[in-house]
Amino acid sequence: MISVILLGAGNVATHLYKAFSDSETVSVTQWYNRTRSSISSYANEVDITDSLEELKEADLYIMAVSDDCIAEFSSALPFTNRLVVHTSGSVAMHDIDKKNQIGVFYPLQTFTKDADIVFSEVPICVEVYEKENLKILRDLARAVGCKPHKITTEQRQTLHLAAVFVNNFTNQLYRFGHEICETKNIEFEILHPLIEETAKKIQQMSPFKAQTGPAKRNDKRTIKRQLKLIEKEEHEAIYKMLTASIKKTHNVSNYRPKKSKTN
Amino acid sequence: MISVILLGAGNVATHLYKAFSDSETVSVTQWYNRTRSSISSYANEVDITDSLEELKEADLYIMAVSDDCIAEFSSALPFTNRLVVHTSGSVAMHDIDKKNQIGVFYPLQTFTKDADIVFSEVPICVEVYEKENLKILRDLARAVGCKPHKITTEQRQTLHLAAVFVNNFTNQLYRFGHEICETKNIEFEILHPLIEETAKKIQQMSPFKAQTGPAKRNDKRTIKRQLKLIEKEEHEAIYKMLTASIKKTHNVSNYRPKKSKTN
Repeated sequence: MISVILLGAGNVATHLYKAFSDSETVSVTQWYNRTRSSISSYANEVDITDSLEELKEADLYIMAVSDDCIAEFSSALPFTNRLVVHTSGSVAMHDIDKKNQIGVFYPLQTFTKDADIVFSEVPICVEVYEKENLKILRDLARAVGCKPHKITTEQRQTLHLAAVFVNNFTNQLYRFGHEICETKNIEFEILHPLIEETAKKIQQMSPFKAQTGPAKRNDKRTIKRQLKLIEKEEHEAIYKMLTASIKKTHNVSNYRPKKSKTN
Repeated sequence: MISVILLGAGNVATHLYKAFSDSETVSVTQWYNRTRSSISSYANEVDITDSLEELKEADLYIMAVSDDCIAEFSSALPFTNRLVVHTSGSVAMHDIDKKNQIGVFYPLQTFTKDADIVFSEVPICVEVYEKENLKILRDLARAVGCKPHKITTEQRQTLHLAAVFVNNFTNQLYRFGHEICETKNIEFEILHPLIEETAKKIQQMSPFKAQTGPAKRNDKRTIKRQLKLIEKEEHEAIYKMLTASIKKTHNVSNYRPKKSKTN
């Protein structure tokens, strides 16, 4: 049994709490948050506290707090030489106060309050300073059904950067799609299957191979027609930039059109 | 039973052929392509031809040919007053030669040769000039398990534009993610669950509500650190543009940081 104390009450903390509660080999010894009311609804399931002084002993302490608070928060912990990890994609492990043993337990997923997650599909990136702590972080990941990946700080920060592209930026493109549909009273839901298929396709082939559409085909007529159709300057700028980027990636200046349709 | 003649042998034609073949209420009377060899492997299942003169009679003719060929191809058809539709997202219905009855049967999905599709989840946008032809196009969509959507040419072209954003452009962001991972020897596969979840999340909530990440939080430190990490100019340009766009969408100049982590 791995005993865990959760620190923080944001989306990551809440999703971790649920995953740990569901696991038979993890026990949440305590849940801390500086505002008690955020977690008071869990008071009948788990020991909750808003006082660092009241923190009990556990195998590890998980700081699921905002990036900017990690260093300061770790210094405020009233104990030493215990295992303390953060859950951030971008903060260096060494930002954690060295009076404790330090590590990272970074679930590479997008957590939103109202969206349920199949936790077992979340890759967990782990990092430790003291080698002997690697096992417990790996065991903890596996205890909630996840695959642990041992990576370096640099790799984690690079992954986090890539995640911003495939998650936050992609979501902003969905937002543009939504806005474009709204201008002509089209339900955005018609695009849902296409969005899902686009995401699914790259599980089978590389994004390079999966590309289709007017830019890849260098279909100048469609591109011109679509640029005319765009109403917002912001959409136009992104359209031009990503169209140029796809052309470059697929080297379409050398493109010879095929007679059969590819999208 | 609806009898169909397919014209063309690209990805859309091939996926349509498979869906029609699997349906009990559609029969593919004939499959035409100007290059016989592209469809010759189907010769024992269906009547194939490379001659327009040999085209038989059917309830409708589906031109799944490239956008640029639609007008010319429809003029070359050696018959009149039959129902002829194209499958394009962007070509006007009226580009089809008026000697026949005209319409559009546009499956809003990304078709790639090697990727299988659950056809029943593909929305079919239908459009007709002669009202009485609406029923057969709707029936045909339903015969392959799809939901038909009656839309105007303008709405279809707008949808196609939105599709370029959520499909082709999104896929190019996946490509960037892939490139970024490669620079630090990280397997792109670690990002697959995040990509799938990002796509799934907007089936439950709007892209506006689903947004997370450093730009939305106006997390200047992370943004600065990530910009330093970026190696390709092209990635940097897109990073800056989409970060600014997310900030604008979420009005983060007025943003007050919360202490709990949101991504």
